[in-house]
Amino acid sequence: MAKQFDVVVIGAGPGGYIAAIRAAQLGLTVACIDAWSTSDGKPAPGGTCTNVGCIPSKALLQSSEHYEQVNHHLAEHGIDVKDVALKLDTLIGRKSNVVKQNNDGILYLFKKNKITFFHGMGSFVSQVDGGWSIKVSGASDEDLVARHVVVATGSAPRALPGLPFDEKQVLSNDGALRIPAVPKKLGVIGAGVVGLELGSVWRRLGAEVTILEAMPDFLAAADQQVAKEAQKAFAKQNLVIQTGVKIGEVKVSAKSLSIAYTDAAGAEQKLVVDKLIVSIGRVPHTEGLGVDTVGLKLDDRGFVVVDEDCKTNLPNVWAVGDVVRGPMLAHKAEEEGVAVAERIAGQHGHVNFGTIPWVIYTSPEIAWVGKTEQQLKTESREYKAGSFPFLANGRARALGDTTGFVKVLADAKTDEVLGVHIIGPMASELIAEAVMVMEFRGAAEDIGRVCHAHPTLSEALKEAALAVDKRALNF
Amino acid sequence: MAKQFDVVVIGAGPGGYIAAIRAAQLGLTVACIDAWSTSDGKPAPGGTCTNVGCIPSKALLQSSEHYEQVNHHLAEHGIDVKDVALKLDTLIGRKSNVVKQNNDGILYLFKKNKITFFHGMGSFVSQVDGGWSIKVSGASDEDLVARHVVVATGSAPRALPGLPFDEKQVLSNDGALRIPAVPKKLGVIGAGVVGLELGSVWRRLGAEVTILEAMPDFLAAADQQVAKEAQKAFAKQNLVIQTGVKIGEVKVSAKSLSIAYTDAAGAEQKLVVDKLIVSIGRVPHTEGLGVDTVGLKLDDRGFVVVDEDCKTNLPNVWAVGDVVRGPMLAHKAEEEGVAVAERIAGQHGHVNFGTIPWVIYTSPEIAWVGKTEQQLKTESREYKAGSFPFLANGRARALGDTTGFVKVLADAKTDEVLGVHIIGPMASELIAEAVMVMEFRGAAEDIGRVCHAHPTLSEALKEAALAVDKRALNF
Repeated sequence: MAKQFDVVVIGAGPGGYIAAIRAAQLGLTVACIDAWSTSDGKPAPGGTCTNVGCIPSKALLQSSEHYEQVNHHLAEHGIDVKDVALKLDTLIGRKSNVVKQNNDGILYLFKKNKITFFHGMGSFVSQVDGGWSIKVSGASDEDLVARHVVVATGSAPRALPGLPFDEKQVLSNDGALRIPAVPKKLGVIGAGVVGLELGSVWRRLGAEVTILEAMPDFLAAADQQVAKEAQKAFAKQNLVIQTGVKIGEVKVSAKSLSIAYTDAAGAEQKLVVDKLIVSIGRVPHTEGLGVDTVGLKLDDRGFVVVDEDCKTNLPNVWAVGDVVRGPMLAHKAEEEGVAVAERIAGQHGHVNFGTIPWVIYTSPEIAWVGKTEQQLKTESREYKAGSFPFLANGRARALGDTTGFVKVLADAKTDEVLGVHIIGPMASELIAEAVMVMEFRGAAEDIGRVCHAHPTLSEALKEAALAVDKRALNF
Repeated sequence: MAKQFDVVVIGAGPGGYIAAIRAAQLGLTVACIDAWSTSDGKPAPGGTCTNVGCIPSKALLQSSEHYEQVNHHLAEHGIDVKDVALKLDTLIGRKSNVVKQNNDGILYLFKKNKITFFHGMGSFVSQVDGGWSIKVSGASDEDLVARHVVVATGSAPRALPGLPFDEKQVLSNDGALRIPAVPKKLGVIGAGVVGLELGSVWRRLGAEVTILEAMPDFLAAADQQVAKEAQKAFAKQNLVIQTGVKIGEVKVSAKSLSIAYTDAAGAEQKLVVDKLIVSIGRVPHTEGLGVDTVGLKLDDRGFVVVDEDCKTNLPNVWAVGDVVRGPMLAHKAEEEGVAVAERIAGQHGHVNFGTIPWVIYTSPEIAWVGKTEQQLKTESREYKAGSFPFLANGRARALGDTTGFVKVLADAKTDEVLGVHIIGPMASELIAEAVMVMEFRGAAEDIGRVCHAHPTLSEALKEAALAVDKRALNF
């Protein structure tokens, strides 16, 4: 007989596993199905984020940042070292270990919250009395009946037409996290978050990295002042970035790849590399879900169609995270997961799309929340801008990391904070305070009047907020 | 003839120079007097914080943290190094350079804001028509008349009775920042912020460090759960801390110091060290100010007596920072400086003493704001507590730094955040978000419902806030 659950979540990425936990906390009986496996066939919940995304990339970024420091920045601190040697297998092994800690952590959380975990593919069979019949195909097959279904099947990397990922030479985010030897020349197509982060990792480890980007503007989604500062900083690091290119034929031979492209000036160019990362975006993943079997509506780009509350066209079927509209960010998926679980339990979950922060973990880090200056201009919204450079921040000087700035955008009349843009040390952590202010619909003056510990990098946010009113104290 | 100013600020530390800048921004004519000199007799504004406090200690903490990483933690990242050598003069020289950048920065700010700077000692002469006669004794002597005076003369390290600082063997925070060679054995009397930070620096650089503390509880001002975690972490680092001791005779010979003390169990002990840092607190500094000449009222501990608005007993004489009541913190002084300048200009400056954050820049870092659990118990306030360990935080795992936790204390009925206590990576920066929430008198649920970027350390604050309601997601 089929096992009965109040909620069956398909996918154990950040959207799915968090939805499962929140639903269980609210007293519902919950199952979560996930097919991801470790190399030895064991369950590896956590989705793209944990297995081949946020977590392993941050582990590699940290290790490669240490390597960069040792090679280039310790002498100024009076620390001399000789014979710096890189053991790439240890570095990659550490990353795999961090991933495993996170996989195991999620399995522990499932047990702790009495969530039944099924290792396999989950798919819709039919609508039945009491909900939905869901099949698990895995180590052992299972039939489940779910009163509510949460689709959290995530996304997959988009390949270049005619150039499938082989993860040996043509790498997605997956293969790019486990190149067995540092390539001499590494090409990256796409200067988005994945391309910049993984390009940075391998550049620090010794590769010559060239990033080709089709869009004319670098980091078009970011505030353009931030994007310019980033491009300057990356150029200093010898991370070559070409924007406005048109990718032509990519020829793959046994030992190298040759990428033909037209540069921004219209000239034909050729880039020859040992490995190529293709990071041109991601597509929603619904393969094997049984979308057609039950008539789950997708849009023309393959996303599951949902309303503001993450309801699909089918009764009691919800969808969250990368597989639905909105930014493909782990924390956006988590927020939707929590909100959907609460709605199923009769509560009133809510996700504020206006205050979802963006982070790029390069060095300098880049983070923002709310509107960019170019968005405000497009909307003809009257605003004031204030910024403050880390060069004038005492903690940044003490750290020896003074690249970048904080910029605060506020409504010209009400002073309400409309956007905060940070490029510089620990931007990823500093943005949290800005998100909090925006959730309270605080004003720039609120930030400026709140005591910030000295010496901290967070003082730069305070000063940028004061600069909105042209009264920064330390600049 | 005496030079006339709307405001004369005596002291160019964080309280003084910020008061001067804010007053100038508000259209007042301002002078600032400061006696601090570089080794070659040039002005060195910035006070204790810039010259021998916050800034140089953070520079040394950063350099020594690099040294610690290279010696003990790079192998796990697959980075092998040989022959690690410390050039202490380069390390100390870098620190001096960071200090100079800050000194020069303040001089630049004085010029930019059209503040007249006098390099010398400022003292009260008499009350005169139109305000106060102030004398500057320095390179050249000057007579000023000030409509308003802001006393921002700071504090000085407290010496042990009978054991004056010689800065060679018996070191204050000043000498402890420039020991010419790493001592084999270093003693520290006083396990407060200064003792812990500078003890950490020299321990990382290779000294055997023993800290003796008179109080029975370690870090009595911090939340006791945080203090316990800190003591455990410091013990692991071989930073020896003995609490509840009674210091006896300290014998200084040409090559070493011998400290007799009674330990917590009542046994007589003796500690022999090469150098001794005495960090048993600081005393308000009013020497040479001419307090008696004009009758400026001090309390029995030597602090300038002020009301809530930083008004002294004398008309139009204000005092801010370490020389008045309240915590001796640079950012508290700055807030008072801004508020006093605004009051002089007829505005309504305000300092919220309930939301001044505390930071200790050890590793792990410690930071808190608001009430500790023991304070709430003493006040018989009903509260809920939630905490979350960095061990369960993805970013901390990726960084390889999972010591510590975040703890949120909230009112049992209203859920208002009453205190946030952090020990762990980047606690100094994470506390900013907590201060912001408390300024808005936000609830723990507010933190829990705000989107936090993944993977960041700031997620630990969100989870601790959720834990207040027993619904942490990842633990």
